[in-house]
Amino acid sequence: MPELRKNPVSGEWVIISPERGKRKFDFTSKTEEKKILECSFCEGHEDETPSEVFSIRKKGTKPDSPGWWIRVVPNKYPALSIGGKPDIEKNGIYLAMKGVGVHEVIIETPDHKKDLFNLENSYIAQVIRVYRDRLVKLAEKPFIKYVLIFKNQGREAGASSTHSHSQIIATPVIPGKIREELKKANRYYNSNKKCIFCDIISKELTLQRRVILENKLFLAFTPYASRFPFEICILPKNHDFVFQKITRDESICLAQILKDVIGAMNKALSNPSYNYFFHIPPGKKGFLKYYHCHLEIIPRLTKLAGFELGTGFYINPVSPEEAAARLRENIHLSS
Amino acid sequence: MPELRKNPVSGEWVIISPERGKRKFDFTSKTEEKKILECSFCEGHEDETPSEVFSIRKKGTKPDSPGWWIRVVPNKYPALSIGGKPDIEKNGIYLAMKGVGVHEVIIETPDHKKDLFNLENSYIAQVIRVYRDRLVKLAEKPFIKYVLIFKNQGREAGASSTHSHSQIIATPVIPGKIREELKKANRYYNSNKKCIFCDIISKELTLQRRVILENKLFLAFTPYASRFPFEICILPKNHDFVFQKITRDESICLAQILKDVIGAMNKALSNPSYNYFFHIPPGKKGFLKYYHCHLEIIPRLTKLAGFELGTGFYINPVSPEEAAARLRENIHLSS
Repeated sequence: MPELRKNPVSGEWVIISPERGKRKFDFTSKTEEKKILECSFCEGHEDETPSEVFSIRKKGTKPDSPGWWIRVVPNKYPALSIGGKPDIEKNGIYLAMKGVGVHEVIIETPDHKKDLFNLENSYIAQVIRVYRDRLVKLAEKPFIKYVLIFKNQGREAGASSTHSHSQIIATPVIPGKIREELKKANRYYNSNKKCIFCDIISKELTLQRRVILENKLFLAFTPYASRFPFEICILPKNHDFVFQKITRDESICLAQILKDVIGAMNKALSNPSYNYFFHIPPGKKGFLKYYHCHLEIIPRLTKLAGFELGTGFYINPVSPEEAAARLRENIHLSS
Repeated sequence: MPELRKNPVSGEWVIISPERGKRKFDFTSKTEEKKILECSFCEGHEDETPSEVFSIRKKGTKPDSPGWWIRVVPNKYPALSIGGKPDIEKNGIYLAMKGVGVHEVIIETPDHKKDLFNLENSYIAQVIRVYRDRLVKLAEKPFIKYVLIFKNQGREAGASSTHSHSQIIATPVIPGKIREELKKANRYYNSNKKCIFCDIISKELTLQRRVILENKLFLAFTPYASRFPFEICILPKNHDFVFQKITRDESICLAQILKDVIGAMNKALSNPSYNYFFHIPPGKKGFLKYYHCHLEIIPRLTKLAGFELGTGFYINPVSPEEAAARLRENIHLSS
């Protein structure tokens, strides 16, 4: 059973999960054909993963058999696992919590050779609606305080498989970074009676120096204080947008901007490894007047080194304005 | 000129430094001989670095010429650079500061093939006293609020050179992670009238489950809530220890534990890339009753992925107790 431990100095929680250490990595020198034969995310290998918890599949096909397009399974090497209460154990200055939570994998296509963002907008939108459905489902489970949807693409981004997939982790505490954002955004709201993210949208649209692309509902830009070169943020322009209730139309709009921006990033930077994650207001409602759903995309071009690890202070060698210009040049709009 | 920018949501500072983007990396497929010929840290290449600011060299030899053992030079691709005041510029919600600061490289040996921790304790101790001297010097400069001494060893740790070296960066703000540690440690002191680090030392010495090694003055252990597998912390056992005043004897004691612990890590993990950094109380005195100088060593075995970047919440696949046991087995004491 994984365990959460609290750092007695910083107050940060850490997940100690020896299960995760058993993961296999498929970025080896094996040939591509051999990797596919051994890949447990491929169609026909359904018995090599834990039983599916959700799937979008052809009528008449059975769970855990071929015939699916999108398949959600518990992670075989979970960071957290469901079962019992997140009891707290205190030993003097040290505090631990049972590692209660959920860790699922969203397999985005049965075909090992396909990349989600080379597929049709409507297909990507379907994956986004699966994100939504799992988010709603996991947020309802007992003791869950936060749910993170994220994607690791490529070896430098920490992926262990080359088969297109995303992940979702539900935690029994609100993670430090989210708590901090909520606190600061709430403080801004109290002083200014406005959402800080709404103010960022209006500022970026006025300046236009860091805007990459916008469509009817979403804005993609490089953040003013980007920690990483070519870091990208996507914001819904309307504060009332609720990810937990994303409609078909909204999901197509989000799919479109994601596909175009990731396409531009892949073109400008020759298919880098990247991570993305959604920051969604916690709680079942998915709405807070002072906090705004957003998506961050981080191409993994530089390594975190001693300075970053020691200070939490990032050095970014590419200005966000230059990054936005390069990304804009590489945009080819999908239809 | 580099620029500091403040994230309007999280309040974190970021350094935007296009200069850093011009760095060359020597982890290429070039042969070792060719790398050495091209290495600007090697003896005989003194004219390829900015002029030295400090060195330990043979009597009668001139600055920026051969004949040195340890040489400190300004970083050719600085994250921050001295010059003027760290003026703040406000543009609505956005805040920037001139990137005032210092970034130096400590070249630990003239010989490309030598690794600091294969050298004698007395030599390592000399490097530590150079850390001390530069720390004292940089902390006196105008507008400097914090000084970080750190080492990046190996490609995965973000090093751009294979020649043994450390770095020192002086910043015009106290970095977020340090500020947070200071705040939490101060709070603990106010409640308990004791230093949290002193309490950690006594707890670890009682439990003995995570202790790797101790000597007369220092304790090395794997922290209870380690974020990374095989993360190591070294603490001076005496709260009154002041790095800025480290004596010859103390530096030999620190060199000894560092050499033994890094040797064990190299043996247990087959010479991994690693970072280390010192957290030293800020200010010229270098002493705070509630905060305790410490050194963290982080072997870079896993990649930070979407979950860590999105939540600040780390998943560690190796328990600190198991890591300590493995490191203890691989200790071979230096004399």
